[in-house]
Amino acid sequence: MSQTLKIVLAQHAMGDDAQKNLETSLELIGQAAFAGADLVVLPELHRTPYFCKSQQARFFDQAEPLDGPTFQALSNSAKEHDVVVVGSIFEARQAGLASNTAIVVEKTGAMAGHYRKMHIPDDPGYNEKYYFAPGDLGFEPIDTSVGRLGVLVCWDQWFPEAARLMALAGAEVLIYPTAIGWDPTDTADEQARQLDAWRIMHQAHAIANGLPVVACNRIGYEHDPDGGHHPAHFWGHSLIAGQQGELIAEANDQATLLMGTVDIARTDQVRRAWPFLRDRRVDAYEGLLSRSLSDES
Amino acid sequence: MSQTLKIVLAQHAMGDDAQKNLETSLELIGQAAFAGADLVVLPELHRTPYFCKSQQARFFDQAEPLDGPTFQALSNSAKEHDVVVVGSIFEARQAGLASNTAIVVEKTGAMAGHYRKMHIPDDPGYNEKYYFAPGDLGFEPIDTSVGRLGVLVCWDQWFPEAARLMALAGAEVLIYPTAIGWDPTDTADEQARQLDAWRIMHQAHAIANGLPVVACNRIGYEHDPDGGHHPAHFWGHSLIAGQQGELIAEANDQATLLMGTVDIARTDQVRRAWPFLRDRRVDAYEGLLSRSLSDES
Repeated sequence: MSQTLKIVLAQHAMGDDAQKNLETSLELIGQAAFAGADLVVLPELHRTPYFCKSQQARFFDQAEPLDGPTFQALSNSAKEHDVVVVGSIFEARQAGLASNTAIVVEKTGAMAGHYRKMHIPDDPGYNEKYYFAPGDLGFEPIDTSVGRLGVLVCWDQWFPEAARLMALAGAEVLIYPTAIGWDPTDTADEQARQLDAWRIMHQAHAIANGLPVVACNRIGYEHDPDGGHHPAHFWGHSLIAGQQGELIAEANDQATLLMGTVDIARTDQVRRAWPFLRDRRVDAYEGLLSRSLSDES
Repeated sequence: MSQTLKIVLAQHAMGDDAQKNLETSLELIGQAAFAGADLVVLPELHRTPYFCKSQQARFFDQAEPLDGPTFQALSNSAKEHDVVVVGSIFEARQAGLASNTAIVVEKTGAMAGHYRKMHIPDDPGYNEKYYFAPGDLGFEPIDTSVGRLGVLVCWDQWFPEAARLMALAGAEVLIYPTAIGWDPTDTADEQARQLDAWRIMHQAHAIANGLPVVACNRIGYEHDPDGGHHPAHFWGHSLIAGQQGELIAEANDQATLLMGTVDIARTDQVRRAWPFLRDRRVDAYEGLLSRSLSDES
């Protein structure tokens, strides 16, 4: 028995023209559907350049409500092409409150659900705590006609806790829209270690939870609007991993539609061989709810 | 500033003669110390063949107390060679109660501490739940003259929770004595996926926690004492990974002293760049204490 899901990751670059970026995404959704996709995933914050490189109040003008223009466009496209779409928006919630939100659009064009990024980064080039409140919806999978989707966003990928909670809640596939790249001033060795670490974390979430994992990353070189201190070279390398962490497909750093088929039914087989969910020591995990168990005095 | 630690993993095979196995371990500790090791790690249950391939009451005769002959021998060796040793025993606690226990021996020959394997496997060829009660000491690092050691054992390696709890408790390096191998009847592809997954999980613990990780595995082909249904080909591939998951050293499937130097002080640098501990959503992790968040009705 198998229950296959054909996933297409629309890895692309974003320029200064938000409308043009959106049209590129829509064009790629159409191509993906033509290629037989059941599910199309877009990169994180795919409507605009990655504005979090600097802290500028004017960028809040780019925020939009859940049912704003990005949803409307994705909704029309999902319905036209009969495909489920995972998109990503800068969500305006009320004055002074915004989130980094993934939206899942059903084949009917309806909103299947949304996920607000729970782990928010804040480091040079990725000043997200300035723009986004921490997610307040928890780790809840989103039910769709193609399965129960464990949608997480970028920085969440470094936290095994997030993947595990989605798995425990019944997610059938883990999906990460991402925007991660190299600091061009880092050495080649450092850049290689970072990309390897990123790939390994996604594979590890697959292994630890017996689930397929996909990540759709941005590509392209984006200047720092503050004047060049923190440019980013988004590294692409979107990937599709199977339940044992094996790579089914991986992109390079160029624009691409990355296609791969995962077999949702294989999760049960893999978990019989590797019954990690059976053996978790839930009686001994309380420390996970602490920030630290060894505060230095 | 650096604070280096030279680690040697004594990857070797075990035969039917327990005394000879122990002598091999002692010989390797001496060689490792001669090569400059600060810390030597032995494989899981290094005194005997991996008896958990079958359920036989007579094998409980092999269990020994914490301060039994294995500790005594390792203690003498650690003191003679001025090195910290991580060993592994089948611990007899009282009639009908045994554990799979790692012991850490100080350079003075004293017991620095012990860890009882928390996650116990139970699948064909690895019938550990028959022999070992689940560990009851939690995830507590062990302080030694060469650092605060986060000692875990084999099956623990598949649980990000265990690595995280050791990291939160201040472990400076994660250490896994292991006994894992291929089922010779599996396909070459399946065997490759399993070994890759094993390596990836260790690398992921390093990345997610910004800690060096080492695993010392058994090698060799061991027959099933029940008559051949579950032989194991222990795959070796002991490894030393740095704080970004980068492989510092990895063995093949032959006997070896695998040497590598980790820089404990680098943890602070890596965690400044990747501040995952800062951003954990401890307010939203309560579900990790549940077996399932999606029980099927």
